[in-house]
Amino acid sequence: MNHNKSELLSPADIELIHNTTMQLLVNVGVEFPDHEAIGVFKQHGVKTDGSRVYLTEEQLMKALETVPAQFTIHARNPDRNVTVGDGEPVFAPGYGAPFLVDYEVGKRAPTMEDYENLARLAHALPNQDLSGHLLVEPGDVPAGTAHLRMMHACMVHSDKPFMGSAAGKAGARHTMEMARILFGEEVGERPVTVGLINSLSPLGYSGEMLAALMEYARWRQPVIIAALVMAGSTGPITLAGVLALQNAELLAGIALTQLISPGAPILFGSTSTNIDMKTGALAIGSPENSMMIAAHAQMARHYGLPSRGGGAITDASCPDAQAGFESMLNLLTTVNSGIDFVLHAGGILSSYLAFSYEKFVLDDEMCGLVRRFRQGIAVGAPELAYDVMAKVGPGGNFLTEMHTVKRCRTEFWQPAVCDRGGLEAWMTGGRQDAVARARQRWQQLLAEHEDPPLETTTARQLQAFVEEHCSRPG
Amino acid sequence: MNHNKSELLSPADIELIHNTTMQLLVNVGVEFPDHEAIGVFKQHGVKTDGSRVYLTEEQLMKALETVPAQFTIHARNPDRNVTVGDGEPVFAPGYGAPFLVDYEVGKRAPTMEDYENLARLAHALPNQDLSGHLLVEPGDVPAGTAHLRMMHACMVHSDKPFMGSAAGKAGARHTMEMARILFGEEVGERPVTVGLINSLSPLGYSGEMLAALMEYARWRQPVIIAALVMAGSTGPITLAGVLALQNAELLAGIALTQLISPGAPILFGSTSTNIDMKTGALAIGSPENSMMIAAHAQMARHYGLPSRGGGAITDASCPDAQAGFESMLNLLTTVNSGIDFVLHAGGILSSYLAFSYEKFVLDDEMCGLVRRFRQGIAVGAPELAYDVMAKVGPGGNFLTEMHTVKRCRTEFWQPAVCDRGGLEAWMTGGRQDAVARARQRWQQLLAEHEDPPLETTTARQLQAFVEEHCSRPG
Repeated sequence: MNHNKSELLSPADIELIHNTTMQLLVNVGVEFPDHEAIGVFKQHGVKTDGSRVYLTEEQLMKALETVPAQFTIHARNPDRNVTVGDGEPVFAPGYGAPFLVDYEVGKRAPTMEDYENLARLAHALPNQDLSGHLLVEPGDVPAGTAHLRMMHACMVHSDKPFMGSAAGKAGARHTMEMARILFGEEVGERPVTVGLINSLSPLGYSGEMLAALMEYARWRQPVIIAALVMAGSTGPITLAGVLALQNAELLAGIALTQLISPGAPILFGSTSTNIDMKTGALAIGSPENSMMIAAHAQMARHYGLPSRGGGAITDASCPDAQAGFESMLNLLTTVNSGIDFVLHAGGILSSYLAFSYEKFVLDDEMCGLVRRFRQGIAVGAPELAYDVMAKVGPGGNFLTEMHTVKRCRTEFWQPAVCDRGGLEAWMTGGRQDAVARARQRWQQLLAEHEDPPLETTTARQLQAFVEEHCSRPG
Repeated sequence: MNHNKSELLSPADIELIHNTTMQLLVNVGVEFPDHEAIGVFKQHGVKTDGSRVYLTEEQLMKALETVPAQFTIHARNPDRNVTVGDGEPVFAPGYGAPFLVDYEVGKRAPTMEDYENLARLAHALPNQDLSGHLLVEPGDVPAGTAHLRMMHACMVHSDKPFMGSAAGKAGARHTMEMARILFGEEVGERPVTVGLINSLSPLGYSGEMLAALMEYARWRQPVIIAALVMAGSTGPITLAGVLALQNAELLAGIALTQLISPGAPILFGSTSTNIDMKTGALAIGSPENSMMIAAHAQMARHYGLPSRGGGAITDASCPDAQAGFESMLNLLTTVNSGIDFVLHAGGILSSYLAFSYEKFVLDDEMCGLVRRFRQGIAVGAPELAYDVMAKVGPGGNFLTEMHTVKRCRTEFWQPAVCDRGGLEAWMTGGRQDAVARARQRWQQLLAEHEDPPLETTTARQLQAFVEEHCSRPG
């Protein structure tokens, strides 16, 4: 197993970035536009000025002390539980895309039916560890209650862990109420979901996100606290500054969770990257994004915090070669860097604007490739195989050796969509590309899908909860 | 700058692999079917039996001592010289593809006109450091003299360093005679090319390759000595065994170069990978290939030898998403692993069977991405930008700050073919994919191409050399 981590920053770099973070926290402060949040900070002796919070290094470090280095997100099927922070990356599908890129028509608005299908696919794809939340934003259901339908879809079509809603306090509360029904018991302090809380760069949070953050913290449920600083617009154009800036936002938010519920699990998250200075558009397939992923993972280790970042992400608007190589640059860097939780591990196109069924299938294949790569090479006498090589000798062939035959089904990774048929078969097969093969695969996976068994009472209660709250929002 | 190398093997693994290599060299031996080669080994007290050579650890290590850790390949334009072994990867285009994958018709036989175009592209593409040799095998010129025309194309269409022919002793001699004309003087001991010598796995060499190897060694010109062991057919199915096997082949070949010309530059090369056990086909987009690349780079460091391996390589037969992500997995791993010379850095499709103009352009973009990624993040006071962040403050914007404006043209990597136009522009632009954009780029590069200036006398002499030897082969 390849345990060494990619180190982009030197120890001196890390110290400089941390010192700049502390200058920001002490002198500039972070905006928390929420009375309760300000109250919590005040109660712990933290300096505030209106909605502005100023943390000293001592206060910050004390708050970070209670963050757990590792935690398990429980699934309704315990075989599907995932552990965050154990050295192996957790893969979760893409999150938050307002559009879908459809094989036939290109850009279109996603529907609730798409969402249901994508939840089924998240269940079926072998390398996605969570079913997700907000896989796409369904355009044909009321926005105020869409989170209920989306959570319901993930709960019934999959027995993998699901992500929670961050639609304010109500979103978080609904998540926990539905989790209580799903698990058929008091959830207690067990993590049963994970919420995504984004900061509002530079140096702030929205009231809605703070409300969700505090609600999850009270339930002692894990939240990802993440920044998407855009270097050159919502942050400085230089990446070192962006690292210091997002640290300040994130660490202040994490401190708040620990002041509310010491020991509540959190993830130190970043999707910060540059903008394209020609167009002002977010650039997520850039080498700068990969550098930010690697550097953020190092900052997380420096603070002893579980990390979230990266994924199979691209600026391309269709699942083409660019989508392939940008996504792999980001994904492999993510995993090499030791990121613990990979939120956009499947489906994302067009700088987070779109989700694609085909890209989802292709990205899951990438996740499998990268997982196998990380397992490394076994080196023992059976694998060194001296006797076999001595027997076969110069000019011989190993194909029919027992050493080969015994291992031929298990030794190598097998692709699900990658083409190894060769040039001649590609020509006679009508020159199919990866998108065409991915399309066949997701259609087959959906055709074969069966919802994992769920007790009738539980299913009925979940359905009733959604119907009740959809008819009377809030 | 990111200087840490990916470490797949532990020191104990490396020792076990080396010990197995020595068992093979001492007890099983390597086939050198060439009287002169056997004579050289005998002369240095190496045990032989017919064409079989048996090296002791002492003999091997003594021979390896004289291998230079670093060398420069000179170009006719000194600004284009490349240094191998200085910690930065050298990128050379794909090599040896018998077919071309054409945008319009798919698989077809390459022509000499294709070769000329690809040599022009190798010159124009910003991340290819060499012009190449055997970019494709042109089907419309006589095979016996094709190497002369191919070298001529690289010499006149580019002033980057070129690779030499490995078509036996004559190929190597022609290379050096043409180099002498091109450089307009005695070449002396300066490396002016690099030849690719492949072993014949398991545990042997062909007579033709040995003849080229020895000729280059006498000229003190660099050669890549490389193995392509196919795990499961020409090598054991277990990668640890493959590493030991290729070490034995390669180190014996390298020893021969040093016994002939102590201090002659060499590269310790590998493209070994697995076969797909379902089809028997070579699998170069596999995670096993990436593991082999990383492990081979470590073995090279163990022996103190400059390394060659990896590249932007794939099993896909068209430049699709699979081609993109497999190529990036391999390329990024190559560079992260510290491989010195990346032979197939552009153009390869279909497990080395085909070259593609569009893939060449896309791979060069990947090389640029990876190079920028490796530069890492500058962390000094100007980049930490505390004052800028303090001034902008929570909720502000950095776009119009002088700190941003001054750096906006230089701070970030700029793509040449990657699409960052966004979803809407992609729709209105007719849903172009990366292949369509790559096609436009190579057509434009060819339209704009001008051969770098070459003295009329030199050009005439080169032309005359090729014509004379093409009319009277050998």
